Amino acid sequence: MDNFKFGESVLLMDGRKGYLVKLEEGMMKLEGGRGALSSSNIVGRKEGDRVTIGRKEFILIRPDILDHIEHIDRGPQMIIPKDSAAIILGLGLTSGKRVIEGGAGSGGLTIALLNSVRPDGGVTTYDIRDDHLRKARKNVETAGLSDNWEGLLGDVRSDVKVEEADAVVLDIPDPEQATGSAWEALRPGGRFCAYVPTSNQLERCCLSLRDAGFSNVEAMELIKRGYSVKEGAVRPSTEMLGHTGFLIFARKL
Amino acid sequence: MDNFKFGESVLLMDGRKGYLVKLEEGMMKLEGGRGALSSSNIVGRKEGDRVTIGRKEFILIRPDILDHIEHIDRGPQMIIPKDSAAIILGLGLTSGKRVIEGGAGSGGLTIALLNSVRPDGGVTTYDIRDDHLRKARKNVETAGLSDNWEGLLGDVRSDVKVEEADAVVLDIPDPEQATGSAWEALRPGGRFCAYVPTSNQLERCCLSLRDAGFSNVEAMELIKRGYSVKEGAVRPSTEMLGHTGFLIFARKL
Amino acid sequence: MDNFKFGESVLLMDGRKGYLVKLEEGMMKLEGGRGALSSSNIVGRKEGDRVTIGRKEFILIRPDILDHIEHIDRGPQMIIPKDSAAIILGLGLTSGKRVIEGGAGSGGLTIALLNSVRPDGGVTTYDIRDDHLRKARKNVETAGLSDNWEGLLGDVRSDVKVEEADAVVLDIPDPEQATGSAWEALRPGGRFCAYVPTSNQLERCCLSLRDAGFSNVEAMELIKRGYSVKEGAVRPSTEMLGHTGFLIFARKL
Amino acid sequence: MDNFKFGESVLLMDGRKGYLVKLEEGMMKLEGGRGALSSSNIVGRKEGDRVTIGRKEFILIRPDILDHIEHIDRGPQMIIPKDSAAIILGLGLTSGKRVIEGGAGSGGLTIALLNSVRPDGGVTTYDIRDDHLRKARKNVETAGLSDNWEGLLGDVRSDVKVEEADAVVLDIPDPEQATGSAWEALRPGGRFCAYVPTSNQLERCCLSLRDAGFSNVEAMELIKRGYSVKEGAVRPSTEMLGHTGFLIFARKL
Repeated sequence: MDNFKFGESVLLMDGRKGYLVKLEEGMMKLEGGRGALSSSNIVGRKEGDRVTIGRKEFILIRPDILDHIEHIDRGPQMIIPKDSAAIILGLGLTSGKRVIEGGAGSGGLTIALLNSVRPDGGVTTYDIRDDHLRKARKNVETAGLSDNWEGLLGDVRSDVKVEEADAVVLDIPDPEQATGSAWEALRPGGRFCAYVPTSNQLERCCLSLRDAGFSNVEAMELIKRGYSVKEGAVRPSTEMLGHTGFLIFARKL
Repeated sequence: MDNFKFGESVLLMDGRKGYLVKLEEGMMKLEGGRGALSSSNIVGRKEGDRVTIGRKEFILIRPDILDHIEHIDRGPQMIIPKDSAAIILGLGLTSGKRVIEGGAGSGGLTIALLNSVRPDGGVTTYDIRDDHLRKARKNVETAGLSDNWEGLLGDVRSDVKVEEADAVVLDIPDPEQATGSAWEALRPGGRFCAYVPTSNQLERCCLSLRDAGFSNVEAMELIKRGYSVKEGAVRPSTEMLGHTGFLIFARKL
Repeated sequence: MDNFKFGESVLLMDGRKGYLVKLEEGMMKLEGGRGALSSSNIVGRKEGDRVTIGRKEFILIRPDILDHIEHIDRGPQMIIPKDSAAIILGLGLTSGKRVIEGGAGSGGLTIALLNSVRPDGGVTTYDIRDDHLRKARKNVETAGLSDNWEGLLGDVRSDVKVEEADAVVLDIPDPEQATGSAWEALRPGGRFCAYVPTSNQLERCCLSLRDAGFSNVEAMELIKRGYSVKEGAVRPSTEMLGHTGFLIFARKL
Repeated sequence: MDNFKFGESVLLMDGRKGYLVKLEEGMMKLEGGRGALSSSNIVGRKEGDRVTIGRKEFILIRPDILDHIEHIDRGPQMIIPKDSAAIILGLGLTSGKRVIEGGAGSGGLTIALLNSVRPDGGVTTYDIRDDHLRKARKNVETAGLSDNWEGLLGDVRSDVKVEEADAVVLDIPDPEQATGSAWEALRPGGRFCAYVPTSNQLERCCLSLRDAGFSNVEAMELIKRGYSVKEGAVRPSTEMLGHTGFLIFARKL
């Protein structure tokens, strides 16, 4: 286990709450105005070491992919881990795979995709909005995953140039308009996924996939139910997120 | 895209249904007594090519991780993809991570774990039953993931020798008995997950994790709801698997 | 507690399974070819008494509304108790209320509605199919609820003549076509409910209700999750009915 | 449809929001400090009429059972309509039935039970806390259902004197302690229901019911999922109540 060095990120854990900072020369600010610290307090230390900032003690942790996803600079509609996890396995991803992503969002799914195909795979993300691409780029860089990423200003419905892709994943309002270009871009056996919030989009996308020749079209949602566990008192949590989005999977056969 | 060669696996797709076979010299049998074929019909062909066996035509596909999981020789209690996907991302896995698994099951989760840490990470699986280990080994080999796997006959509650592990995942009846050894094995910031079918196990495991010093103990389940999508008629599927298991996540901080 | 007499129904319980028969002169057949018995063996006995038929012993129970619903001669699409219960309370029903029902189905909901407004309320059911009405009539009669029921061959979308109804409930494919007639039929403060299987119908009905002037339009579904409870092993049931229908409630204000 | 008169309740609807007031001589206050009005403005008017209070116009509605349940003076743990509806039908209730209730809560379930057995049935409620009984009594009176209710200070686990009851329903922390007295109180064929928040209580109660001789022990929960319906955009609501309680049904056979 190496010591922390300049250029990498560190997670400062204060009880349950964590602050993710990149180790740069000079003073660094914590999120939420929770103070500032000098990187020289951290560089050279090891994971698990404790540092005191102001009156608080923090544990130093080397962030993993989940830390990066949970701390990205996000918009409200980010695909959350329960869904991105299902997308990654549902697309059959692993090191070396090549993925096309339509719709950058805040880059949360992008990071999860990149994490699954590294060190030698790649993700190409198309977005028609430059501001989305810029936010995604920032988050991909913070997660240290830039080497495998290509972010392109363009329309996944018409501008895809990748060939023999292993997977196409869409987080755009009208994925039914991109099923044809997805088909063209995929290798035989390649997999498709779309994430849509409404049942109207779900219907249009599934019908379009069948028209485009896709097989094994499957629609689903994953409902995450939390539990409150106290001694002698186990019950589902009363607080619950009722819906995120539907997932549609299909395959080019 | 390379041609199929001896030693690798091929997926023969017949409409929605697929047969996974390993390309070996001579005749190979399809699962379920669906005929036999000579590997010489396939070796040298490309993904997407079609072959005729008996009176049926099949498309040749190079299987991905999901194909391997769906076609493993399984027991009834295998952790299914919705859960293994959540486990992998929930443990923050990526290339290079080192994972300890307690309970081999049929190797379904093992394969998913190995897939996420390849090419340079590793999974060490402990099981007290030799027959479970052998079944897991066979499935890991078929998936071509043996290089990164160590399967050990032993008790994860007491026999773990790995140090500085990134993650520990347990699919055993009494994970509450293994929280101490999990703590010892993990690096600071390392993550824990247990999969348990009953709320009684859920309670014992969560309480034991807190006693052992773990932070961020979180209990949940993922409910997968399928949808039937026809033109003008979208509705949740009537057939549904009501329960698989609860997931417990925690972190060493 | 009175003794059983001719004309009423009796439930013969054999362990978990029950047989519902009407006490008529002479021999009566059990459902499913499970034998026959003479009503004279039962008339005059009390609830809780045991009788032997063939080699089996049965307990005599006076059936309640739930027994009648569970034993009706049914079609596949009957509204089941979790939904009919929510409909009855969601419509604010009680003794004396007047209800219009569109779509007789097998009479399962009809019986539940009648049960809730008896002894002095009434239900008027419209169906365009005579065979549905006949099946519903048979089931209403077996449940002993005929006095408060009017079954009419007609179209709830156009033929409703009831005025100042307390509630309108629709189990028809296009409830959006009946929101105007529902509005006309209801008293101020009266309540509306529709039961639909698909999200497409859900959308059309909700939009039509708002157009027709209804307030408090609320869409929902009730998901029933069973539990397996053994000593030391509590878990949600693996078998589960994934979907029945959506419920839409609204009010004339 | 009669005119409003002194002594009955009226619902003043202001858009989606309603105020429930009892028509008494003199000035009456609206809930939440929303003004006051003289009952003489309302008495003699008809349902659907409009009155202006301050600068707001209200529609006059005669409240039904659901209005009463939604406007009762409540504590935080009230059994909500999705559950009370299932309890009522699951207990097979109808006019004339006799019910024993253990645990008065805020009287929300009591009112629903009373509503289902009126005009000629009865509910006897036992509570060991006088303040709970008093709150329930107030709410039962506001709902106009006092005639059929008996509220007793006492312990449902030991003090039940009713015989040949049709149903027993328990909302107490330890229903497993009351299964014996429930058995004694029920007629043959009578039904039992308990409502419990945790899976630990669920387990104890189910085991105790089987020990006490009950049949058809069934454990479940009802999950209510709301939907957001806009034109072209139907989706499950993001806000959702994740859990209320488990329902346990059983029968004395």
